[in-house]
Amino acid sequence: MPRPRSEKARQSVLAAMRRALAAGGYEAVTIEGLAAEADVAKQTIYRWWPSKAAILGEALVEGELPAPALPITDDLTADLRAVFSAQGEGSGETVALARALIVVTATDPELGARLNERLAAPLRAWTAERLARAVQAGEVRPDVDAGIVADQLIAIGSYSALLGVRMDSERAAALSGLVLRGIAAPDS
Amino acid sequence: MPRPRSEKARQSVLAAMRRALAAGGYEAVTIEGLAAEADVAKQTIYRWWPSKAAILGEALVEGELPAPALPITDDLTADLRAVFSAQGEGSGETVALARALIVVTATDPELGARLNERLAAPLRAWTAERLARAVQAGEVRPDVDAGIVADQLIAIGSYSALLGVRMDSERAAALSGLVLRGIAAPDS
Repeated sequence: MPRPRSEKARQSVLAAMRRALAAGGYEAVTIEGLAAEADVAKQTIYRWWPSKAAILGEALVEGELPAPALPITDDLTADLRAVFSAQGEGSGETVALARALIVVTATDPELGARLNERLAAPLRAWTAERLARAVQAGEVRPDVDAGIVADQLIAIGSYSALLGVRMDSERAAALSGLVLRGIAAPDS
Repeated sequence: MPRPRSEKARQSVLAAMRRALAAGGYEAVTIEGLAAEADVAKQTIYRWWPSKAAILGEALVEGELPAPALPITDDLTADLRAVFSAQGEGSGETVALARALIVVTATDPELGARLNERLAAPLRAWTAERLARAVQAGEVRPDVDAGIVADQLIAIGSYSALLGVRMDSERAAALSGLVLRGIAAPDS
Protein backbone atom coordinates (compact mmCIF):
# COMPACT_ATOMS: atom_id res chain seq x y z
CA MET A 1 0.00 0.00 0.00
CA PRO A 2 1.51 3.34 -0.96
CA ARG A 3 2.29 5.60 1.96
CA PRO A 4 0.53 8.98 1.87
CA ARG A 5 2.56 11.99 0.80
CA SER A 6 4.37 13.58 3.72
CA GLU A 7 3.72 17.32 3.62
CA LYS A 8 7.12 18.06 5.11
CA ALA A 9 8.94 15.96 2.51
CA ARG A 10 6.84 17.49 -0.26
CA GLN A 11 7.76 21.00 0.84
CA SER A 12 11.44 20.00 1.01
CA VAL A 13 11.35 18.81 -2.59
CA LEU A 14 9.57 21.97 -3.80
CA ALA A 15 12.09 24.17 -1.92
CA ALA A 16 14.94 22.17 -3.44
CA MET A 17 13.46 22.73 -6.90
CA ARG A 18 13.23 26.51 -6.30
CA ARG A 19 16.86 26.66 -5.13
CA ALA A 20 18.08 24.50 -8.02
CA LEU A 21 16.20 26.66 -10.52
CA ALA A 22 17.78 29.84 -9.16
CA ALA A 23 21.24 28.25 -9.02
CA GLY A 24 21.63 26.60 -12.40
CA GLY A 25 18.40 26.79 -14.41
CA TYR A 26 15.81 24.12 -15.11
CA GLU A 27 17.82 22.10 -17.63
CA ALA A 28 20.47 21.34 -15.01
CA VAL A 29 17.97 20.05 -12.44
CA THR A 30 18.00 16.28 -11.94
CA ILE A 31 15.74 14.08 -9.84
CA GLU A 32 18.88 12.71 -8.18
CA GLY A 33 20.00 16.21 -7.23
CA LEU A 34 16.59 17.13 -5.86
CA ALA A 35 16.43 13.93 -3.81
CA ALA A 36 19.85 14.57 -2.28
CA GLU A 37 19.11 18.23 -1.61
CA ALA A 38 15.70 17.53 -0.04
CA ASP A 39 16.94 14.42 1.81
CA VAL A 40 14.17 12.31 0.29
CA ALA A 41 14.49 8.99 -1.53
CA LYS A 42 14.58 9.21 -5.31
CA GLN A 43 11.81 6.61 -5.54
CA THR A 44 9.61 8.83 -3.37
CA ILE A 45 9.91 11.64 -5.90
CA TYR A 46 9.16 9.32 -8.81
CA ARG A 47 6.09 8.07 -6.89
CA TRP A 48 4.74 11.52 -6.12
CA TRP A 49 5.34 13.40 -9.37
CA PRO A 50 4.98 12.21 -12.98
CA SER A 51 7.78 14.47 -14.28
CA LYS A 52 10.38 17.09 -13.46
CA ALA A 53 8.07 19.69 -15.03
CA ALA A 54 5.29 18.70 -12.62
CA ILE A 55 7.58 19.42 -9.63
CA LEU A 56 8.56 22.72 -11.19
CA GLY A 57 4.94 23.72 -11.78
CA GLU A 58 3.92 22.85 -8.24
CA ALA A 59 6.92 24.74 -6.83
CA LEU A 60 6.07 27.87 -8.81
CA VAL A 61 2.30 27.76 -8.31
CA GLU A 62 2.79 27.53 -4.54
CA GLY A 63 5.97 29.53 -4.03
CA GLU A 64 6.70 33.22 -3.81
CA LEU A 65 7.29 34.96 -7.11
CA PRO A 66 9.43 38.02 -7.76
CA ALA A 67 7.31 41.19 -7.59
CA PRO A 68 7.74 43.34 -10.70
CA ALA A 69 7.89 47.14 -10.41
CA LEU A 70 4.54 48.48 -11.63
CA PRO A 71 4.44 52.23 -11.00
CA ILE A 72 1.31 54.37 -10.90
CA THR A 73 2.19 58.06 -11.22
CA ASP A 74 0.44 60.95 -12.92
CA ASP A 75 2.39 60.32 -16.14
CA LEU A 76 0.76 57.55 -18.19
CA THR A 77 3.51 57.56 -20.84
CA ALA A 78 6.27 57.21 -18.24
CA ASP A 79 4.39 54.44 -16.43
CA LEU A 80 3.89 52.41 -19.60
CA ARG A 81 7.53 52.79 -20.57
CA ALA A 82 8.65 51.73 -17.13
CA VAL A 83 6.51 48.60 -17.32
CA PHE A 84 7.82 47.68 -20.77
CA SER A 85 11.40 48.24 -19.63
CA ALA A 86 10.89 46.12 -16.51
CA GLN A 87 9.09 43.37 -18.49
CA GLY A 88 11.87 42.93 -20.93
CA GLU A 89 14.72 43.37 -18.52
CA GLY A 90 15.56 39.76 -19.02
CA SER A 91 16.87 39.35 -15.50
CA GLY A 92 17.88 35.77 -14.87
CA GLU A 93 14.84 35.30 -12.67
CA THR A 94 12.36 36.61 -15.26
CA VAL A 95 13.84 34.48 -18.02
CA ALA A 96 13.90 31.42 -15.76
CA LEU A 97 10.24 31.95 -14.89
CA ALA A 98 9.16 32.53 -18.48
CA ARG A 99 10.97 29.40 -19.61
CA ALA A 100 9.66 27.41 -16.69
CA LEU A 101 6.14 28.45 -17.60
CA ILE A 102 6.62 27.12 -21.10
CA VAL A 103 8.16 23.85 -20.02
CA VAL A 104 5.33 23.26 -17.57
CA THR A 105 2.71 24.25 -20.16
CA ALA A 106 4.20 21.88 -22.71
CA THR A 107 3.94 18.91 -20.34
CA ASP A 108 0.87 19.84 -18.27
CA PRO A 109 -1.37 22.44 -19.94
CA GLU A 110 -3.75 22.68 -16.96
CA LEU A 111 -0.93 23.40 -14.49
CA GLY A 112 0.62 25.74 -17.07
CA ALA A 113 -2.61 27.73 -17.28
CA ARG A 114 -2.73 28.11 -13.50
CA LEU A 115 0.91 29.18 -13.38
CA ASN A 116 0.38 31.66 -16.20
CA GLU A 117 -2.59 33.19 -14.39
CA ARG A 118 -0.48 33.61 -11.28
CA LEU A 119 2.43 35.16 -13.18
CA ALA A 120 0.18 37.49 -15.18
CA ALA A 121 -2.10 38.56 -12.32
CA PRO A 122 -0.03 41.55 -11.07
CA LEU A 123 0.24 42.99 -14.57
CA ARG A 124 -3.49 42.47 -15.21
CA ALA A 125 -4.36 44.26 -11.96
CA TRP A 126 -1.93 47.10 -12.75
CA THR A 127 -3.35 47.56 -16.26
CA ALA A 128 -6.94 47.71 -15.00
CA GLU A 129 -6.07 50.22 -12.28
CA ARG A 130 -3.78 52.41 -14.41
CA LEU A 131 -6.22 52.56 -17.33
CA ALA A 132 -9.22 53.34 -15.10
CA ARG A 133 -7.26 56.31 -13.81
CA ALA A 134 -6.30 57.40 -17.34
CA VAL A 135 -9.93 57.14 -18.47
CA GLN A 136 -10.93 59.41 -15.59
CA ALA A 137 -8.22 61.85 -16.64
CA GLY A 138 -9.60 61.83 -20.18
CA GLU A 139 -6.39 60.35 -21.60
CA VAL A 140 -7.78 56.96 -22.61
CA ARG A 141 -11.00 56.05 -24.39
CA PRO A 142 -13.56 54.62 -21.95
CA ASP A 143 -14.31 51.69 -24.26
CA VAL A 144 -10.75 50.33 -24.18
CA ASP A 145 -10.69 46.73 -22.93
CA ALA A 146 -8.02 46.63 -20.20
CA GLY A 147 -7.81 42.85 -20.53
CA ILE A 148 -6.78 43.11 -24.18
CA VAL A 149 -4.16 45.77 -23.36
CA ALA A 150 -2.83 43.54 -20.58
CA ASP A 151 -2.63 40.68 -23.10
CA GLN A 152 -0.41 42.85 -25.28
CA LEU A 153 1.90 43.82 -22.42
CA ILE A 154 2.18 40.26 -21.14
CA ALA A 155 2.76 38.76 -24.57
CA ILE A 156 5.51 41.21 -25.47
CA GLY A 157 7.21 40.91 -22.10
CA SER A 158 7.14 37.11 -22.08
CA TYR A 159 8.31 36.78 -25.65
CA SER A 160 11.18 39.21 -25.08
CA ALA A 161 12.22 37.48 -21.88
CA LEU A 162 12.05 34.04 -23.46
CA LEU A 163 14.16 34.89 -26.44
CA GLY A 164 16.43 37.27 -24.59
CA VAL A 165 15.48 40.19 -26.85
CA ARG A 166 17.05 43.25 -25.28
CA MET A 167 14.41 45.79 -24.22
CA ASP A 168 16.46 48.99 -24.37
CA SER A 169 14.85 52.35 -23.71
CA GLU A 170 14.37 53.00 -27.42
CA ARG A 171 12.45 49.76 -27.95
CA ALA A 172 10.40 50.28 -24.77
CA ALA A 173 9.53 53.80 -25.96
CA ALA A 174 8.50 52.59 -29.43
CA LEU A 175 6.33 49.78 -28.07
CA SER A 176 4.67 51.87 -25.37
CA GLY A 177 4.15 54.65 -27.93
CA LEU A 178 2.23 52.25 -30.19
CA VAL A 179 0.12 50.97 -27.31
CA LEU A 180 -0.52 54.50 -26.10
CA ARG A 181 -1.72 55.71 -29.48
CA GLY A 182 -3.94 52.67 -29.68
CA ILE A 183 -5.76 53.48 -26.46
CA ALA A 184 -5.62 57.31 -26.45
CA ALA A 185 -8.80 59.37 -26.25
CA PRO A 186 -9.42 61.30 -29.51
CA ASP A 187 -8.69 64.73 -28.08
CA SER A 188 -6.13 63.97 -25.40
CA MET B 1 38.95 7.64 -34.38
CA PRO B 2 35.36 8.85 -34.67
CA ARG B 3 33.76 8.27 -38.01
CA PRO B 4 32.54 11.42 -39.79
CA ARG B 5 28.80 12.15 -39.76
CA SER B 6 27.03 10.44 -42.62
CA GLU B 7 24.82 12.99 -44.34
CA LYS B 8 22.27 10.32 -45.23
CA ALA B 9 22.02 9.09 -41.64
CA ARG B 10 21.84 12.64 -40.35
CA GLN B 11 18.93 13.42 -42.69
CA SER B 12 17.19 10.22 -41.61
CA VAL B 13 17.39 11.25 -37.96
CA LEU B 14 16.12 14.78 -38.70
CA ALA B 15 13.23 13.38 -40.77
CA ALA B 16 12.41 10.93 -37.95
CA MET B 17 12.32 13.86 -35.50
CA ARG B 18 9.93 15.81 -37.74
CA ARG B 19 7.59 12.83 -38.06
CA ALA B 20 7.74 12.09 -34.33
CA LEU B 21 6.99 15.73 -33.53
CA ALA B 22 3.95 15.72 -35.79
CA ALA B 23 2.75 12.37 -34.47
CA GLY B 24 2.99 12.70 -30.72
CA GLY B 25 4.66 15.98 -29.73
CA TYR B 26 8.17 16.68 -28.49
CA GLU B 27 7.74 15.27 -24.98
CA ALA B 28 6.98 11.82 -26.35
CA VAL B 29 10.09 11.72 -28.56
CA THR B 30 12.85 9.41 -27.32
CA ILE B 31 16.35 8.84 -28.63
CA GLU B 32 15.52 5.13 -28.80
CA GLY B 33 12.47 5.85 -30.93
CA LEU B 34 14.39 8.12 -33.27
CA ALA B 35 17.16 5.57 -33.66
CA ALA B 36 14.69 2.81 -34.54
CA GLU B 37 12.72 5.03 -36.91
CA ALA B 38 15.85 6.34 -38.68
CA ASP B 39 17.56 2.92 -38.65
CA VAL B 40 20.64 4.40 -36.98
CA ALA B 41 22.43 3.18 -33.85
CA LYS B 42 21.47 4.96 -30.63
CA GLN B 43 25.14 5.60 -29.87
CA THR B 44 25.48 7.37 -33.21
CA ILE B 45 22.78 9.82 -32.22
CA TYR B 46 24.39 10.41 -28.81
CA ARG B 47 27.72 11.03 -30.56
CA TRP B 48 26.32 13.52 -33.07
CA TRP B 49 23.96 15.58 -30.93
CA PRO B 50 24.35 16.83 -27.35
CA SER B 51 20.60 16.67 -26.61
CA LYS B 52 17.14 15.91 -27.94
CA ALA B 53 16.55 19.67 -28.21
CA ALA B 54 19.60 19.99 -30.47
CA ILE B 55 18.14 17.43 -32.90
CA LEU B 56 14.82 19.26 -32.81
CA GLY B 57 16.46 22.61 -33.50
CA GLU B 58 18.46 21.24 -36.40
CA ALA B 59 15.37 19.54 -37.85
CA LEU B 60 13.36 22.76 -37.69
CA VAL B 61 16.07 25.12 -38.88
CA GLU B 62 16.66 22.94 -41.94
CA GLY B 63 13.19 21.58 -42.60
CA GLU B 64 10.15 22.98 -44.31
CA LEU B 65 7.87 25.02 -42.12
CA PRO B 66 4.11 25.45 -42.49
CA ALA B 67 3.34 28.59 -44.50
CA PRO B 68 0.90 30.87 -42.67
CA ALA B 69 -1.83 32.72 -44.59
CA LEU B 70 -0.75 36.35 -44.83
CA PRO B 71 -3.23 38.17 -47.07
CA ILE B 72 -2.60 41.51 -48.78
CA THR B 73 -5.87 43.03 -49.99
CA ASP B 74 -7.10 46.63 -50.15
CA ASP B 75 -8.63 46.33 -46.68
CA LEU B 76 -5.99 46.89 -43.97
CA THR B 77 -8.39 46.16 -41.11
CA ALA B 78 -9.47 42.85 -42.63
CA ASP B 79 -5.86 41.86 -43.37
CA LEU B 80 -4.73 42.54 -39.80
CA ARG B 81 -7.67 40.60 -38.37
CA ALA B 82 -6.96 37.68 -40.64
CA VAL B 83 -3.34 37.58 -39.52
CA PHE B 84 -4.28 37.70 -35.84
CA SER B 85 -6.85 34.97 -36.35
CA ALA B 86 -4.37 32.77 -38.20
CA GLN B 87 -1.61 33.43 -35.63
CA GLY B 88 -3.68 32.33 -32.71
CA GLU B 89 -5.42 29.46 -34.43
CA GLY B 90 -3.57 27.11 -32.17
CA SER B 91 -3.44 24.40 -34.79
CA GLY B 92 -1.45 21.47 -33.53
CA GLU B 93 1.39 22.36 -35.85
CA THR B 94 1.62 26.00 -34.71
CA VAL B 95 1.58 25.04 -31.05
CA ALA B 96 4.16 22.32 -31.61
CA LEU B 97 6.44 24.79 -33.39
CA ALA B 98 6.04 27.50 -30.75
CA ARG B 99 6.81 25.02 -27.98
CA ALA B 100 9.70 23.53 -29.90
CA LEU B 101 11.14 27.01 -30.31
CA ILE B 102 11.07 27.52 -26.57
CA VAL B 103 12.56 24.15 -25.73
CA VAL B 104 15.37 24.74 -28.19
CA THR B 105 15.94 28.29 -26.92
CA ALA B 106 16.09 27.10 -23.33
CA THR B 107 18.85 24.62 -24.12
CA ASP B 108 20.69 26.36 -26.97
CA PRO B 109 20.01 30.12 -27.15
CA GLU B 110 22.02 30.59 -30.34
CA LEU B 111 20.12 27.87 -32.22
CA GLY B 112 16.90 29.21 -30.69
CA ALA B 113 17.61 32.67 -32.09
CA ARG B 114 18.20 31.24 -35.58
CA LEU B 115 15.01 29.20 -35.39
CA ASN B 116 13.03 32.20 -34.16
CA GLU B 117 14.32 34.32 -37.03
CA ARG B 118 13.22 31.65 -39.47
CA LEU B 119 9.78 31.30 -37.92
CA ALA B 120 9.24 35.06 -37.70
CA ALA B 121 10.60 35.97 -41.14
CA PRO B 122 7.35 35.58 -43.14
CA LEU B 123 5.42 37.74 -40.67
CA ARG B 124 8.17 40.39 -40.67
CA ALA B 125 8.16 40.52 -44.46
CA TRP B 126 4.34 40.70 -44.57
CA THR B 127 4.25 43.54 -42.01
CA ALA B 128 6.82 45.59 -43.92
CA GLU B 129 5.02 45.12 -47.24
CA ARG B 130 1.49 45.65 -45.89
CA LEU B 131 2.43 48.77 -43.92
CA ALA B 132 4.34 50.32 -46.83
CA ARG B 133 1.18 49.94 -48.89
CA ALA B 134 -0.96 51.45 -46.11
CA VAL B 135 1.44 54.40 -45.77
CA GLN B 136 1.09 55.04 -49.50
CA ALA B 137 -2.69 54.92 -49.13
CA GLY B 138 -2.48 57.48 -46.33
CA GLU B 139 -3.87 55.03 -43.75
CA VAL B 140 -0.74 54.63 -41.63
CA ARG B 141 1.71 57.23 -40.36
CA PRO B 142 4.95 57.17 -42.38
CA ASP B 143 7.07 57.16 -39.19
CA VAL B 144 5.65 53.86 -37.92
CA ASP B 145 8.41 51.29 -37.36
CA ALA B 146 7.25 48.11 -39.14
CA GLY B 147 9.73 46.06 -37.11
CA ILE B 148 8.09 47.12 -33.85
CA VAL B 149 4.62 46.33 -35.22
CA ALA B 150 5.87 42.92 -36.35
CA ASP B 151 7.25 42.36 -32.83
CA GLN B 152 3.76 42.95 -31.47
CA LEU B 153 2.11 40.56 -33.90
CA ILE B 154 4.71 37.85 -33.38
CA ALA B 155 4.67 38.16 -29.59
CA ILE B 156 0.89 37.96 -29.34
CA GLY B 157 0.67 35.07 -31.79
CA SER B 158 3.41 33.05 -30.11
CA TYR B 159 2.12 33.65 -26.63
CA SER B 160 -1.42 32.68 -27.63
CA ALA B 161 -0.23 29.57 -29.41
CA LEU B 162 1.98 28.53 -26.52
CA LEU B 163 -0.66 28.85 -23.88
CA GLY B 164 -3.49 27.69 -26.09
CA VAL B 165 -5.38 30.96 -25.64
CA ARG B 166 -8.31 30.81 -28.02
CA MET B 167 -8.10 33.59 -30.64
CA ASP B 168 -11.79 33.95 -31.51
CA SER B 169 -12.97 36.61 -33.94
CA GLU B 170 -13.86 38.97 -31.09
CA ARG B 171 -10.38 38.82 -29.58
CA ALA B 172 -8.72 39.11 -33.00
CA ALA B 173 -10.86 42.19 -33.72
CA ALA B 174 -10.02 43.82 -30.38
CA LEU B 175 -6.28 43.20 -30.74
CA SER B 176 -6.08 44.30 -34.36
CA GLY B 177 -8.22 47.34 -33.49
CA LEU B 178 -5.70 48.41 -30.86
CA VAL B 179 -2.78 47.90 -33.22
CA LEU B 180 -4.59 49.73 -36.00
CA ARG B 181 -5.35 52.78 -33.86
CA GLY B 182 -1.72 52.78 -32.77
CA ILE B 183 -0.42 53.06 -36.32
CA ALA B 184 -3.23 55.03 -38.01
CA ALA B 185 -2.52 58.30 -39.79
CA PRO B 186 -4.14 61.24 -37.93
CA ASP B 187 -6.78 61.96 -40.57
CA SER B 188 -7.42 58.53 -42.03
